[in-house]
Amino acid sequence: MSQEDSIKEKETIIIKAARKRFAHYGFSKVTMDEIAGDVEMGKASLYYYFPTKEDLFRAVILQEQNELKKNIELILEKPNCASEKLQEFVEQRMKFFRILLNLGTLSVHSYFDIKSLFKKLFFDFEEVELNFIKKIIDEGKTKKEFSQDLPEDAALIFLHILQGLRCRVLRWTKGQSLDEDTHTKLQQEMKTATDFFIYGIKSK
Amino acid sequence: MSQEDSIKEKETIIIKAARKRFAHYGFSKVTMDEIAGDVEMGKASLYYYFPTKEDLFRAVILQEQNELKKNIELILEKPNCASEKLQEFVEQRMKFFRILLNLGTLSVHSYFDIKSLFKKLFFDFEEVELNFIKKIIDEGKTKKEFSQDLPEDAALIFLHILQGLRCRVLRWTKGQSLDEDTHTKLQQEMKTATDFFIYGIKSK
Repeated sequence: MSQEDSIKEKETIIIKAARKRFAHYGFSKVTMDEIAGDVEMGKASLYYYFPTKEDLFRAVILQEQNELKKNIELILEKPNCASEKLQEFVEQRMKFFRILLNLGTLSVHSYFDIKSLFKKLFFDFEEVELNFIKKIIDEGKTKKEFSQDLPEDAALIFLHILQGLRCRVLRWTKGQSLDEDTHTKLQQEMKTATDFFIYGIKSK
Repeated sequence: MSQEDSIKEKETIIIKAARKRFAHYGFSKVTMDEIAGDVEMGKASLYYYFPTKEDLFRAVILQEQNELKKNIELILEKPNCASEKLQEFVEQRMKFFRILLNLGTLSVHSYFDIKSLFKKLFFDFEEVELNFIKKIIDEGKTKKEFSQDLPEDAALIFLHILQGLRCRVLRWTKGQSLDEDTHTKLQQEMKTATDFFIYGIKSK
C-alpha cells in the first residue's frame, strides 16, 4: 500500500467513527478524545489527520454530499421521464437532509457554529444540485416533455423553492432536529410543490 | 368625544410616532422616553396606553397588517382574472415585508427578541393570507380558469413556497435588513414562482 493509500484508509476509518458519534450525540457534544478512543489512536495522531473537530465534521458532511451526488447521478442514467427524475431527486435530497439533521444539530447551542461550518459546503453543493436540475430540465425540453420556452432561471427558482420550504420549517427550531412528524410533512410538501412545478413546466 | 374615542385617538397618535421612530432607528435602538417626547406626553401617560415597548411595537405591526389586509381585500373586488389577483397579492405582500424590515430589523442584536415578538402576530396573519389565497383559487376554479381537481392543500403549499423563498434569503442576514438589490431579486423570484404555480394549477 502506498503512503497515500494508507493515509486515505486511516481517514476513512476516522470519518466512519466520527460519523457514528456525531449521529448519536450531535456535533457539539462529541470530543476529539472520544473519537481517538473509538479508532484506538492517540489524540496527536488523530490531529495529524484532522487538526480540528470542525475539519473532521466537514469531512463527514463532504462524504455525505458525495454519497448524494452519486445517487443523483444514478437518477440521470435511468430510463424514466424527466418529471420522474425530478421527483426522485427531491426524494434523495430529503433523505440527505435527514442524515444531516441527525449528524449535527441535535444540540441547540451549536446551531450558529454549524451554520457557518456548513456555509461553504452548502454553497459549493448548491452548484452541483443546480447543474443536476438544469440537466433534467434540458432533457425534458429535448424530449418535448417540458415546454420549449421556459425562463432561463427555472432550475434556480425550483432549487430555491425546495431550499425555502425546508428553511421555513427549520425557522423556529433553532437547530433542534425535526421530529418524525414534521419531517414527513415537509417531505410531502416538497413532493406536492414539485408536482406543481412539473405541471407548470410541462408542454401544453 | 367619548372616552373610548379619545383613547383611540391618543393611541393612533402614539402608534404613528412610534412607527416613524422604529422605521428610522430600528426596534432595539428606540426608547420609550423618545417616543413620549415625540408625542409631548409624560412617560407615565405613555405607559398607560402601552405598558412596554414590545406592546407598542406589536401595535405598529398590527396596524401594518391591517393595512395589508385592506389592500388584499380590495384585490378580491377587482374584475381581474384569478391569476392576476394572485400576482397582485404577492406584490402587496412583498411591499408589506419591506415595511416590516425597515421597522424592526435594522439592528442585528434584536433579531431573536423580534422573532418571538413577531411569532404570534405572524401565525395569526398566516390564517388571513391562507383564506385569501383559498378564495382566489376557489374563484379560479368556479370560473374554470383553474383545474377542477386541485389538491386540498394547494393554497397552503403556495403560501409556504412564498414564505420559504423569503426565509432562505433572510437565512444568513441574522435580522439585518435586506439591501435594495436582494429585495428586488426576491421580488422577481416570488413573481416567477407564482407564475409557475399558476401554470401548474391552470385548466389544461
